[in-house]
Amino acid sequence: MSRTLHLNAFLMSTGHHEASWRLPESDPRAATDVEHFKALARTAERGTFDSLFLADGPVLWGDVAQRPAGVIEPLTLLTVLAATTEHIGLIATASTTYNAPYNLARRFASLDHVSRGRAGWNIVTTAGQAAARNFGLDDAPEHASRYERAAEFVDLTLKLWDSWEDDVYVGDKDLGIWGDQRKIHPPRHQGRYFSVEGALNIPRSPQGYPLLVQAGSSEDGKDFAARYAEAVFTAQQTLEEARAFYGDLKGRTLATGRDPEGIKILPGLVPVIGSTEAEARRRDAELEELITYEHGQLRLAELLQVPVEELGLDAHLPEDLPPSDRINGAQSRYELVVELARREHLTVRELIGRLGGGRGHRTFAGTPEQVADEIELWFTGGAADGFNIMPPVLPSGLELFVDEVVPILRRRGLFRTEYVPGETLRERYGLPRPADRAARGAHHAARTRDHEAPITLGSLS
Amino acid sequence: MSRTLHLNAFLMSTGHHEASWRLPESDPRAATDVEHFKALARTAERGTFDSLFLADGPVLWGDVAQRPAGVIEPLTLLTVLAATTEHIGLIATASTTYNAPYNLARRFASLDHVSRGRAGWNIVTTAGQAAARNFGLDDAPEHASRYERAAEFVDLTLKLWDSWEDDVYVGDKDLGIWGDQRKIHPPRHQGRYFSVEGALNIPRSPQGYPLLVQAGSSEDGKDFAARYAEAVFTAQQTLEEARAFYGDLKGRTLATGRDPEGIKILPGLVPVIGSTEAEARRRDAELEELITYEHGQLRLAELLQVPVEELGLDAHLPEDLPPSDRINGAQSRYELVVELARREHLTVRELIGRLGGGRGHRTFAGTPEQVADEIELWFTGGAADGFNIMPPVLPSGLELFVDEVVPILRRRGLFRTEYVPGETLRERYGLPRPADRAARGAHHAARTRDHEAPITLGSLS
Repeated sequence: MSRTLHLNAFLMSTGHHEASWRLPESDPRAATDVEHFKALARTAERGTFDSLFLADGPVLWGDVAQRPAGVIEPLTLLTVLAATTEHIGLIATASTTYNAPYNLARRFASLDHVSRGRAGWNIVTTAGQAAARNFGLDDAPEHASRYERAAEFVDLTLKLWDSWEDDVYVGDKDLGIWGDQRKIHPPRHQGRYFSVEGALNIPRSPQGYPLLVQAGSSEDGKDFAARYAEAVFTAQQTLEEARAFYGDLKGRTLATGRDPEGIKILPGLVPVIGSTEAEARRRDAELEELITYEHGQLRLAELLQVPVEELGLDAHLPEDLPPSDRINGAQSRYELVVELARREHLTVRELIGRLGGGRGHRTFAGTPEQVADEIELWFTGGAADGFNIMPPVLPSGLELFVDEVVPILRRRGLFRTEYVPGETLRERYGLPRPADRAARGAHHAARTRDHEAPITLGSLS
Repeated sequence: MSRTLHLNAFLMSTGHHEASWRLPESDPRAATDVEHFKALARTAERGTFDSLFLADGPVLWGDVAQRPAGVIEPLTLLTVLAATTEHIGLIATASTTYNAPYNLARRFASLDHVSRGRAGWNIVTTAGQAAARNFGLDDAPEHASRYERAAEFVDLTLKLWDSWEDDVYVGDKDLGIWGDQRKIHPPRHQGRYFSVEGALNIPRSPQGYPLLVQAGSSEDGKDFAARYAEAVFTAQQTLEEARAFYGDLKGRTLATGRDPEGIKILPGLVPVIGSTEAEARRRDAELEELITYEHGQLRLAELLQVPVEELGLDAHLPEDLPPSDRINGAQSRYELVVELARREHLTVRELIGRLGGGRGHRTFAGTPEQVADEIELWFTGGAADGFNIMPPVLPSGLELFVDEVVPILRRRGLFRTEYVPGETLRERYGLPRPADRAARGAHHAARTRDHEAPITLGSLS
């Protein structure tokens, strides 16, 4: 195949549909059952998925009466899955607002070592007052300053991952010389948000850097992605919107001097699969019936930052919502939801129903052939390099996708039939391993002579 | 057996002897090889050890030329071992000075969930300027303030672990009610060092709290241990010193209102095992010959906070060393080293040789019978509840201990022959599971009526 589809499995307790835990087949305590996730990872690996992904926020959201609450911390869970899988990539969400760079750089380098090059970091800035108040702040820093901090955090983290050259190890037992201290490069970073003096206490990891992933689609988010991200998860409701986003982000990436091929764009897809289209639609409707609309109303009011009394279930959204740049939270999610409601003239009840499946991500109900057609259409139509697959119900939705849709994609030559043994996550996404400081120094000298544009992430630090 | 010996395996790259990496049998890169640790964990589990333990500091120490450098972050490594073992406890070191309580409480609760109740936390305050400078500080906070912060950190962490009662889960699919919000208790903590508003985002873990471990032996450290610790790792060179420490710490524990049985004291032991005593001594001497004394001199100067020029290799320690309360670092290690040198009239060279084996922990060279005799003598002689076993060379030193010493301890009825299926680490150490807030509230009311003294950790929060 000339261009390979990338598929990421976004894992979440009983599935992405908010009512999935109420189905007879579901275990409502799946979120903290490590065996549930081990089985999901095995299924995804059987389907030769590129990677697994876990979202995260350091906060207990809302009311535990309303929906399943409590999760295993993502890096911990993915470390277990590193030990119980062989090939699949492991992408954990972690916040640049509520972590110390030295600690987080260590943890991702450690996951990369123990998984032999399969770690990825979904970089988030973490909106919301509730999270802030778990870390000694009254409220979250405002949107732009969170992104400014995130940029310094990532720059510094790259320096930490580069604080060892690849070949520090000497291993001369006779002379008693273990390594070459000249190949250790302490960051000596003094920035606006952080200062970190010393080198990391772990050798450079198999991938050099874990795969860098990003999912914010606000203006700040897209600029951040263009500068740093190698894979982007995004919520896009229509082919046209997805094409516009794809073109915009590839353009911004080029404008930073990076190769647009170096950033893979994966829209979210909630596939509701049936053996006929009617069966798929019935499954979707069954799930929608289990939604508790009063809870949805509360959450929508929170997202839109309006009093819940202004959101009548059978009315349309109020006309006078605040402009998105006044939202110090999930700006791009806010815009997507308002745009969806206005475009399709949805009532609040209908909007909650649409959001219940994938929290703003696209739900598509159909036969395996129809799901594969949609994937192919977006993939070949300039809208996607792959998909972030968000099964509405787990484990059954992932099993269906792997058993029914993946074989079709393989027959069409769109998707791999097996893993390349020993391949890192970065290699699977078609991305180069960042050279270490010594090699980059030499390369940089050569590049300067040739007046070539810097195109690798390595040029960032 | 009436009283059970507790054995913890302290794992460290190629072993605890600083020159162990130079032996022909050793892999100098073992510290970042996850397969090395998986094999060690299997060996320790074959020997029915209580637990594994990993030390930690968030810093790259010294010069990589001098000795193996770089480690897998301990909670990450122990999470891998949780997935590849069944019974053994998993004790990770983590700093109260360089972590956020919400993050660390989540990580330990997560490890406890994925290991089904086998997590332990070795609480450290982390001395030294180098670590401080990796976290935006010019120098470490002084000794007493580190311990004050540690106490608030642990109090708050206990509140976070108690922020869910055990039975929050309701799981009524028909009514759409997942849990009982009245059983969630946000800490709403506003302290001197931390403020944390919300509940943890993970249910109460199998053990309630992970096993709480501590290893500082300064005055501050012993007071801290008396208040919080359930297991204590300590360096004791002689039976008399160990007895004094044991009695002192059990007494301090009683003075805080806790049951002295609720704190298990495990001195470190570096067993150098030979089929004859002469062979054991030869092994010890071979290791000592591989020590690089110039490196030892630098490290000793750092510990004692004197210029290296004042430490002649064939001279004794200077008479005018600073008093230990002037040392803003590892105070108890400082005292132990100075005391050892003075008591045995050691030259700097001899002292470095003695410290090379176990960094101040006791080295004992002998036959398996002799090692078992020593263990029995200390265990029955009021000096130890068990031992922190620190093999000088790994993996061979752990294999020797498991194959040669453990069977003797078992024959003498001192040590278990098999694990109790499903037993938690806390149960193995003979400690109660802390009751949740609801049960403790009820118990507390009953206790107040009966005028009983509070004796469980639960009474701390």
